[in-house]
Amino acid sequence: MESETMPTHLEHFTDKSTPVKVPAREFLQIGRRAGYFPSAVARIPEGETEVNVWCSNDYLGMGQHPLVLAAVHDAVSKFGAGSGGSRNIGGTNRLHVELERELADWHRKDAALLFTSGYAANDGALTVLAGTPADTVVFSDALNHASIIDGLRHSGATKRIFRHNDVDHLARLLDETDPDLPKLIVLESVYSMSGDVAPLAEIADLAERFGATTFLDEVHAIGMYGPQGAGIAAREGVADRFDVIMGTLAKGLGTVGGYIAGPSDLIDYVRAVSRAFVFTTSLPPANAAGALAAVRHLRGAEVERRRLAENARLLHSLLNEADIPFKSSDSHIVSAVVGDDALCKRASARLLSRHRIYVQAINAPSVREGEELLRIAPSATHTATDVKKFAEALAGIWLDLGIPTASERKRSSSAVKEAV
Amino acid sequence: MESETMPTHLEHFTDKSTPVKVPAREFLQIGRRAGYFPSAVARIPEGETEVNVWCSNDYLGMGQHPLVLAAVHDAVSKFGAGSGGSRNIGGTNRLHVELERELADWHRKDAALLFTSGYAANDGALTVLAGTPADTVVFSDALNHASIIDGLRHSGATKRIFRHNDVDHLARLLDETDPDLPKLIVLESVYSMSGDVAPLAEIADLAERFGATTFLDEVHAIGMYGPQGAGIAAREGVADRFDVIMGTLAKGLGTVGGYIAGPSDLIDYVRAVSRAFVFTTSLPPANAAGALAAVRHLRGAEVERRRLAENARLLHSLLNEADIPFKSSDSHIVSAVVGDDALCKRASARLLSRHRIYVQAINAPSVREGEELLRIAPSATHTATDVKKFAEALAGIWLDLGIPTASERKRSSSAVKEAV
Ligand SMILES: Cc1ncc(COP(=O)(O)O)c(C=O)c1O
Ligand SMILES: Cc1ncc(COP(=O)(O)O)c(C=O)c1O
Repeated sequence: MESETMPTHLEHFTDKSTPVKVPAREFLQIGRRAGYFPSAVARIPEGETEVNVWCSNDYLGMGQHPLVLAAVHDAVSKFGAGSGGSRNIGGTNRLHVELERELADWHRKDAALLFTSGYAANDGALTVLAGTPADTVVFSDALNHASIIDGLRHSGATKRIFRHNDVDHLARLLDETDPDLPKLIVLESVYSMSGDVAPLAEIADLAERFGATTFLDEVHAIGMYGPQGAGIAAREGVADRFDVIMGTLAKGLGTVGGYIAGPSDLIDYVRAVSRAFVFTTSLPPANAAGALAAVRHLRGAEVERRRLAENARLLHSLLNEADIPFKSSDSHIVSAVVGDDALCKRASARLLSRHRIYVQAINAPSVREGEELLRIAPSATHTATDVKKFAEALAGIWLDLGIPTASERKRSSSAVKEAV
Repeated sequence: MESETMPTHLEHFTDKSTPVKVPAREFLQIGRRAGYFPSAVARIPEGETEVNVWCSNDYLGMGQHPLVLAAVHDAVSKFGAGSGGSRNIGGTNRLHVELERELADWHRKDAALLFTSGYAANDGALTVLAGTPADTVVFSDALNHASIIDGLRHSGATKRIFRHNDVDHLARLLDETDPDLPKLIVLESVYSMSGDVAPLAEIADLAERFGATTFLDEVHAIGMYGPQGAGIAAREGVADRFDVIMGTLAKGLGTVGGYIAGPSDLIDYVRAVSRAFVFTTSLPPANAAGALAAVRHLRGAEVERRRLAENARLLHSLLNEADIPFKSSDSHIVSAVVGDDALCKRASARLLSRHRIYVQAINAPSVREGEELLRIAPSATHTATDVKKFAEALAGIWLDLGIPTASERKRSSSAVKEAV
């Protein structure tokens, strides 16, 4: 006879009779080849093969830039592999301080603060900023990144979600809120999954009108847009109207880590109390060195930005020609909409097996169900030939798998509207 | 006339009339010299000076080990400065997978999972494990690290705090809890600030008796204790009785990053749903390479562990001779108790200015007020002469500043008891 005891905590994970639902996840193992991006060696069922990567966030190829690699090698030789402590306890290297100064200067803010990742920067900073003072009301774009959502949740602040990029809705929510309550608006400039750009000037106007602090995640913009690559707010000439600018060292800058830049009192406060900042080992000096070399290079050179923009433009026009639906042509993030979980995985698998092209299928929880997509990221390291080959391969797969075209999606969505 | 409007959110940080309290924090800027640890160049008011570092968590000096540095250089040259993506989207390198296998094997677990830091590992894993299933009751040691506290808080689980290392209290709390509820016990092996060691076998007994899952943070033990440096649980022969072992790559292994090791179903679940794992760029392959070289070296060599143990033993005996109070002689973490914020800072400042010795003063919030301490960390790279010089300098400062000796503390605490 079976025992009648309840499952233990562990049995919820390990006992087949009481499984918690484990979404299947298999990570493609790839080795990007420094000096040959976007080429990488991938481990597929048939063995190792060379692939052309179309989903890396190292958009500018700074992860292989000779200046970046030289800075990393040099710092490893001088300071070793790690920092040896938290920032307050033996883990502050000159390179951390120099990088913080450079980032602050880039965004024309008083000061900046490094975290171990962009996730930690959003989570760590927003937990503090949205939670201080305790009656703060936060206005958050509906498509904000998980790290923003987590920081806001951890702050305990009252949260009002405004419809994605919908300035009227934001205005209404601000207007409905007690004018005496402290207010914080949190948004991205280039959205990570849809690739569209926020109406920054209009949001800055609202912030001013309602006395709200503004926190802008430029993770997918820094390096890529604006004068010196300082981001979309800089491009639009409104960087000084955003109180805090947040970024990552891991995408346009090709290394790892995250940061916020803003008024020095605010930065000092986060530095002192943010638990995700205080209670962890700081970035290895070598990672900071790499990012510092990348920022300095990107402030002075246009070549990577120009190449990325050209590739994005070419891809947009080729996909339009091929009638492949994608979310936005505002940026280099090209989200080709498949809209079905299984189909999306098949498209990705076929790109890999037939064309040696790697684009990860993006499914829930990264996007909503029914919005499954191929998140395509051209980079500065792709050639025009790469772009053409890619677009051709994608068009073939769209046809072969019968994925709805842009025109078909338009027809069926207007049909839905008529039926309603 | 002054306007009567309430301060905006930003003014709470920047307007001197409504300041949020900003604890003063100044980070000493040091450059550890690879190849010459524990020597570093520090920036003090008089300029740059060479110091002997006594508060690094790179306890074994693996951050400068030639095998580690070679592995880092090699991976930077091959793969570049960053991973280019999250683990699921283009950011899984062979080195991540190999390091996870090595860590699992080290702890004799099925599988392991890397995070970007130890903080992220505790926060990310415990948010999931304590929160699943939703009625889980967590039993947490009173001195657990901030990253554990944050993970448990974020999980929303019911939490019972047991008195530090108090098995009877834990037994009582377990006994008071509905036997049908899923239970999780979370503890450290070597405590980060007190340096004492948990009674692992007794806690494992309780876990077995009450059907609780066990999650053990071995951050300050891996590399330093047990056969192959696998930690305190391995040393005590009870590693198989702890379901999840958590560690960092940033202390004994000298690089950066964190991990959990445990049953594969549980690891798969965390891999799929932990937001701090999913929504962030993975560690640069080079950081994984450094940690992998460090683990492999430490599994085969005793020399660093032996040196560290000798230095710790020598320091314990010298401090006892000098009548300097410290919390525990169970480990290499030597917490010399000052018990006063200003005095603690003065002791640290004087070690630096007079003796060119760097030990950070530890104040609230890292320890409770009144428990301010110098957290002294001998390392494998100190010589016996370093240790003797250090103990002498400390004894001088204890005398000069009139910090209570061990005997004085004992007398005054028994006086308090008598008065009660
Ligand atoms: C909008 C946004 N913010 C923050 C992050 C986190 O940055 P990181 O990868 O450096 O943790 C990401 C991506 O990961 C992102 O897309
Ligand atoms: C007990 C304990 N757990 C976890 C951590 C976090 O590790 P990491 O520095 O790798 O974030 C620390 C120290 O920072 C610690 O002392």
